[in-house]
Formats: sequence, C-alpha cells, structure tokens
Amino acid sequence: MGALREDELIDVHTHVVPESFPRYLGRHADAPWPSMAPAHACHAHVMISGKVYRTVSRQCWSCSVRLADMDRQGVARQVLSPMPELLSYWMAPEDGVAMCRFLNETIAGMVAEAPARFAGLGAVPLQDVALAIEMLQDLRPRHGLVGVEIGGNVNGTPIGDARLRPFFEAAAALDLAVFVHALRPCGLERLVGPAIFEQVLAFPGEVGLAGASLITGGTLAAVPSLRVALSHGGGTLAALLPRLHHAWRKLGSVRDLLPADPAEEARRLYIDDLVYDAPTLAHLIEVFGSERVLAGSDYPFAIMDDDPAGSIDELAAVAVLDPELRTLLRGANARRWLGEADAVAGAVKGADVGTSKPEARG
Amino acid sequence: MGALREDELIDVHTHVVPESFPRYLGRHADAPWPSMAPAHACHAHVMISGKVYRTVSRQCWSCSVRLADMDRQGVARQVLSPMPELLSYWMAPEDGVAMCRFLNETIAGMVAEAPARFAGLGAVPLQDVALAIEMLQDLRPRHGLVGVEIGGNVNGTPIGDARLRPFFEAAAALDLAVFVHALRPCGLERLVGPAIFEQVLAFPGEVGLAGASLITGGTLAAVPSLRVALSHGGGTLAALLPRLHHAWRKLGSVRDLLPADPAEEARRLYIDDLVYDAPTLAHLIEVFGSERVLAGSDYPFAIMDDDPAGSIDELAAVAVLDPELRTLLRGANARRWLGEADAVAGAVKGADVGTSKPEARG
Repeated sequence: MGALREDELIDVHTHVVPESFPRYLGRHADAPWPSMAPAHACHAHVMISGKVYRTVSRQCWSCSVRLADMDRQGVARQVLSPMPELLSYWMAPEDGVAMCRFLNETIAGMVAEAPARFAGLGAVPLQDVALAIEMLQDLRPRHGLVGVEIGGNVNGTPIGDARLRPFFEAAAALDLAVFVHALRPCGLERLVGPAIFEQVLAFPGEVGLAGASLITGGTLAAVPSLRVALSHGGGTLAALLPRLHHAWRKLGSVRDLLPADPAEEARRLYIDDLVYDAPTLAHLIEVFGSERVLAGSDYPFAIMDDDPAGSIDELAAVAVLDPELRTLLRGANARRWLGEADAVAGAVKGADVGTSKPEARG
Repeated sequence: MGALREDELIDVHTHVVPESFPRYLGRHADAPWPSMAPAHACHAHVMISGKVYRTVSRQCWSCSVRLADMDRQGVARQVLSPMPELLSYWMAPEDGVAMCRFLNETIAGMVAEAPARFAGLGAVPLQDVALAIEMLQDLRPRHGLVGVEIGGNVNGTPIGDARLRPFFEAAAALDLAVFVHALRPCGLERLVGPAIFEQVLAFPGEVGLAGASLITGGTLAAVPSLRVALSHGGGTLAALLPRLHHAWRKLGSVRDLLPADPAEEARRLYIDDLVYDAPTLAHLIEVFGSERVLAGSDYPFAIMDDDPAGSIDELAAVAVLDPELRTLLRGANARRWLGEADAVAGAVKGADVGTSKPEARG
C-alpha cells in the first residue's frame, strides 16, 4: 500500500454487513443470531430475534458498489469494520467466537478483492477476554486484518475497566489498531423522539465516556504503544476533558489517581472527524492535536457524511488548513494509526505541524 | 436592582444548603429526608438515609461568608439555587411540597438579607406536575424568587417529555426563569473511578440530553417566551447539535418531527459558562450566540470555578472579547434571563453583537 499518494483519502469509519449469515449451529435456543431477509431493490433486512434490526443496502457487502462510491467521493481507501451490533457481546462466548470468525472471514474476503482499496478491522468476543485475546492472534497473520473494532462498553462494562486491560495490552503487542464504536449506548432513557436518535444523540455520550474511562482507568498510561481511535469525533469527550482537567488540578484525590494531566493523556487517542461541522472539527484538532484526527464517514449508513473530502476542505473556512494539516487529516494520520511503516516516519513531520496549535484557529 | 452598573458580574450558578432542616413530619417511615450533622470547623455533613451525602461548608448558608467571597471574587450578585439533591423528586409528593416550601423560605430569607446582592431560584415538586405548578404561583409574589431550579430529569423522565410541558408553560406565563441542573445523571454505569466523577464526567451528558429533549420534544418551539438556562455550559449539547442538525437536514422523518432547524432552536436556550476552558467557551458562544451565555461558578462546591471574572477575561486569549461581549457575559445576559426590565431593553444592543459571529473566533 506504499503506492498510495501521500495525500490520498483514507476513510477509517465504514461498516460492513455480510450479504448473508451462516445458519446458527450453536446450542442456545434463543440466541439472537442474525439473518438476512429480502427487502426492496438492492436492500436487505438484518433480522435479529424475529424483528428487523436495520434495513441495509448492498453497499454493506458489495465491493464493486463500494469502489464506485469511493471513486465518486474521492476516497482512496476504506477501513472496513463490522456493523457494531454484530459484535454480539451478549451472545454466549462460543457463539460470539463463531460470529466473530465469520465476520473476520467476510471482511478479509472483501479486503482480498481489492487490497489497495480496503483495509480491514476484525471482531473479537470481548464477553470473554481470554477468548478475545486468543482470536486477536489470528487477525493479522490468518485474516490479513490490521486491527479490531470494539464497543464503548461490553455488556455495560466500560472499556477502561481493569478487566479489559489484558485485551488492550494484547492488541498493542500484536501491533493492531483499535477502533472504538458506540454500541448499546447509555442515556437511551433520556431521549425524546424516534429510534434514530439513539445514533444521533446517544452515541456521542457513549463514546465520550468510553474514552474517558481509558484515561481514568489508566489504560492509556499503562499501554503507551496502544493505537486506539474513537469514532464520532470522540463523541462528547472534548466537552468532558476541561472538567476532568480542572478536577485533576484542584482535587488531590483525583491527582493521586491520575499521575499525568488527563487532558494531555487524551492526546494519545486518535479520533475520527465525523462531527458534520467545521468549527467543531477545528476545536477537536486543538483538543486532540493535528496528528490525531482521521477522516471517517460512517459509510454506508443513513447519517453518513456523504462528502468526507469536503468536510476536511470546509475547515479552511474557519481555520488555517495548510497542505500539511490537510495531508495529515486525509490519510497520514490514518496510516500512522494503522501502523503502516512509511507513515510512522512521516509522523515526525506531522509533529511539527501539531505544535503550531494557534495557527489552527486562525 | 437597577442600581447595578451595567457590567457588574452576576454569578447565576451558586448553590444553597440550609444550615439545618426541620424535623421530618411526614408519614413515610423511610423517607430520605435530609438532616445536618456537625463536621470539622465551619462544615457540616448533609445526612440522607443515615449516610453522609456530602460535607459542605457554611458558605452554603451564611450570607456574610458569601458576601465576603463575592467581594473578593468581584461578583456583584449571586443567583441562589438549592443543592440539586435537595429537589427531592423521589419523595412522596406531599413530602416534596414540604421540602420545597422549606427551601423556598430559606432562599427567600437569604435574598432578604441582601436584596441587592442575591436573587433566588426556588424548588417545586416535579414528581407531581400539578402540585409543582401550584407551588410555582407562589415563588415570585410570596417568596420574592425570580425563577426555579429543576433537574435534567424527574425520576428518569427527561424534561422534554410532553408530561412536563404544562410546567414550562406555567413558568413562562409566570415570568419565571428556569435553571436546569444535572441531578442523578445517566451514564454513571460507564464511569471508572471515584464518586466525584459523577459530577465531573456524568453531569455534562445529563445536561446535554436534557437540553436536547427540550428541542426534540418540542418544548422550546411550543413555549417561545420560556427563559431556560442550562448549567455546565449546556453540558454536551454543543457536541450533539451538529449531529442533530445533520440528521434533520438529511432524514425526512426527523424533519417531519422538527419543523425548525434544531441548531437554530438551541439558540433560544441560555447556558452558563462553567466549562473551565477559554477555547471551549469561545466555541459555545458561537454555537448558542453571544446573548445566551451567562457567568456561573458552581459556588461553593469542590469543583467550583474560583474566578468567574477571570474565566470571562481569559476569552481574550482566544477570541475577540470586546467591551460589549464582556458586558453581555458578565451580567447583561443574566439580567435578560432573569427578566429584569431594563436588561430587556439592553438586549437589543446585544443582538447586534450576536450577529458578528466570525469576530468571536478571531
């Protein structure tokens, strides 16, 4: 993949749903194993426990449709990850293993169809951390996947909980990128409106608290080589960090818990730029650093950003978008997050840009 | 209070705990009625259900201590509101009435001690909307209070729920300001760390979703004269609005529900400036408008902003803080939110400043 031009656009936030699922072969009568049912032209219903979970288009599984869309959008490469509900943390561990193996094979197959245009993130059954670590070993050597997608919580346990620390240590040791996506978010009971508001209004809080837990639980400090990216612009995390920093500065009890400034720790995280608003994106670049922001669109779902290239270019209206920053956001940061060797060398150049913070505001 | 200089500082976010509580006279054996127990010098424990809920200082009830602090901080006036846990929505309605009446009398008494230096917000038992509306009637004529503090949810029901609409209609009709504070927030199950993280990390999400519910539930559109302020900088709401705007623009189902652009509707809200960070505050002024941001400190609690005047002046480092904007933030906006007649005239001037958005970013 070294043949990509330096400023080619990498969309790190795109989802896959398999065209069909294998028959359930487990032993749990009520397992919420998904299946597909035909819907209107080019669409299918994802059925879970007898109900339509979501109706999706063949963009979800067809490489040729995706490639045509990418060409139209100017996207050089998509990073493929499972539709998060498929992570199946609520299934019995052995069923989770079967589902994750199927997802990993599906995504590996899509990457193999166009290896210059796709990179793949796999799934592991985090409801059983030991099994998850076992499956992590296979992702790169067996499936050619470069990372793993996880939820912000695992059946209610935030990912910064100490019980999940071994997973993050293994991901770092195996040189795998980690992508944190909202999944069964907190705060649903506070929404007034239709079901789509789960994605619109509850996802950001879930991702924000997941990111905060990686700081307050000590994961980022303990696993310095971890390369972890938060989806949806880090959700609400940017709004939480100044309060956390203030509490850390003012309260001895918080400083005893967190040796390093949590707002500085947060700059170890990557985030995608999926915030639909140039001033918000400019603010996030200040908070997390210009080397930490990745292009992401949520392709091909209903609230996707149809123009990920344009969303970066719109930054120019509110901040200085110099060629170096544009290159970082379009792909150099993503290549560093994905662990591509030539991008790591480029990161040194990126670091210079990152320190010129005031320029980013204009 | 027309004697206040135009740019005098009004701190809208300060809390009161009474020095003692009356004995419980209700009929519920296990009512979580609070009491005070002595603690170390100048402090007392707020006891609820036999446990220390919080240890507070006499800043909570002593007008003379508060006035000395205000003089040192350069605060001309504090808006007093109950410590939110005292709102007691989880008590039986008749116990809620008794507690709210006691709180309202306590705060009215403090305002009466120094009416040029304090304004008061009362409490009403929102667990029974009809009773709450009945008590609202008394706040201004009987107690001299100018508004009411409410939680972001009432026993789990978000404030934008249609069942609470009559409360907001009554508050508007009675010319009362409404202050929305986090209380028993959602997301606690996602925190990793000590209890103080409830305030640090969960409060913003609670306030953000409460504010969103006032938009998506149609309250702001239906009650245009409502003057409602969100605490903690509106929490995470600014991070949610671009996603909500995007969904509204893209999805017919959301547009059918919300006739007006939700990001524009949000500019009907007031927010306080309690975000501990000048770039974040500059971003909020862009999102909500320069006429909508109020000074607020969380006095006298542990994570309070010790220097509310300085937090406004620090804006000058990241944005244009011209004299008009400074006046708006220090007090003119607060007076308009509080419904003070001379401030309403001043708001016309403020509107001119509000339209010069790009200047606020520099």
